[in-house]
Amino acid sequence: MFAGAQISLYPMTDRFVTVILGSLSAMDPWRDRLRITTDDVSTTVIGPPEVLFPAVGALFLAAARQGGHVVLNATFSRGCPGEPDDPICIGAGLPVAPGAMTGLAEAALARLQDRPPAGIAVAAQIALYPLGEAQHMDGIWECIDFLKRSGVFATSKHFCTKLRGDADRVLQTIEQAFLGFAGPDRHIVLTAILSAGSPSQAKD
Amino acid sequence: MFAGAQISLYPMTDRFVTVILGSLSAMDPWRDRLRITTDDVSTTVIGPPEVLFPAVGALFLAAARQGGHVVLNATFSRGCPGEPDDPICIGAGLPVAPGAMTGLAEAALARLQDRPPAGIAVAAQIALYPLGEAQHMDGIWECIDFLKRSGVFATSKHFCTKLRGDADRVLQTIEQAFLGFAGPDRHIVLTAILSAGSPSQAKD
Repeated sequence: MFAGAQISLYPMTDRFVTVILGSLSAMDPWRDRLRITTDDVSTTVIGPPEVLFPAVGALFLAAARQGGHVVLNATFSRGCPGEPDDPICIGAGLPVAPGAMTGLAEAALARLQDRPPAGIAVAAQIALYPLGEAQHMDGIWECIDFLKRSGVFATSKHFCTKLRGDADRVLQTIEQAFLGFAGPDRHIVLTAILSAGSPSQAKD
Repeated sequence: MFAGAQISLYPMTDRFVTVILGSLSAMDPWRDRLRITTDDVSTTVIGPPEVLFPAVGALFLAAARQGGHVVLNATFSRGCPGEPDDPICIGAGLPVAPGAMTGLAEAALARLQDRPPAGIAVAAQIALYPLGEAQHMDGIWECIDFLKRSGVFATSKHFCTKLRGDADRVLQTIEQAFLGFAGPDRHIVLTAILSAGSPSQAKD
């Protein structure tokens, strides 16, 4: 399997370069298990999901803790048939068996851990794209059922679901949405926006 | 058909609220043919593609012309089976017939117009997701062939294609990538990042 993400960090401040550079060391605990390359639009992070998600989450939290309005935009992908298998992506494997279609929301809820909060309030917006599936909405509806019961569901929007809450719970929920609604033989994409410190009115 | 986008504008400046508010009037010429709602994470824009794309492009250009580093993040969607048909989405229709699978790259290239440049240099990153298709990579490969011949192809990255050039040509290319690789009976999502004024090294 090939797995990874394209991520971009957007600190809405004149000091954006300083905020970004000052956040990168937060990924260090996971760096030797990831392949990371950066250009002027995004950073490519290749590695297994259980390394990818904590590393990306830590990067966002490090930037958000510097204050102000910070957004992380991420596209997570696994199992793309256009990408080769890659040794760096070998990890713990996925929690869903090939072909499993029932009880996925319950199982994903059971995997959410009762951990100390990160202490950063975030809004997030995610969309799950199960590709190569004639009945792609089945997995999406099951995932939306999970999101509604995750404790951080905010509202349904066109094309996506909005979450709100402590960053740790929101990040765990996004990870389970990516992992838990298709087996390791499938091609899955999840897009996520994580936003902290927005001065705009929430409306949800 | 239902069509629309979730868009977010990220000006990397202390003045981000002023830049965003100062750009909104650029959408006015199309506003009566769109349904627009905004919250703290994104703006939902519902309407037919031939209205949606120029309106979103004008918003980004208005922000980019204010200088500094500005990013637009957008997810365009059409034909989602979870959304109802909506009268505001009735428009010119799509250029691809249901089931058409050949000559799509050539046809999309022929629809690119020789227009005056916008005068703003941009980098962009896009990914096309044909949903509800067992053979979803066929449309993706055809679209990548089109992108490589569009005149603004920069490089292939994991999970996406990078474009670079004048904003008008890049925006036209993104619109044709969304329109031109599946018929009106399909569910299509395209994600796009548009970036102007980045101080980072391009590397492509």
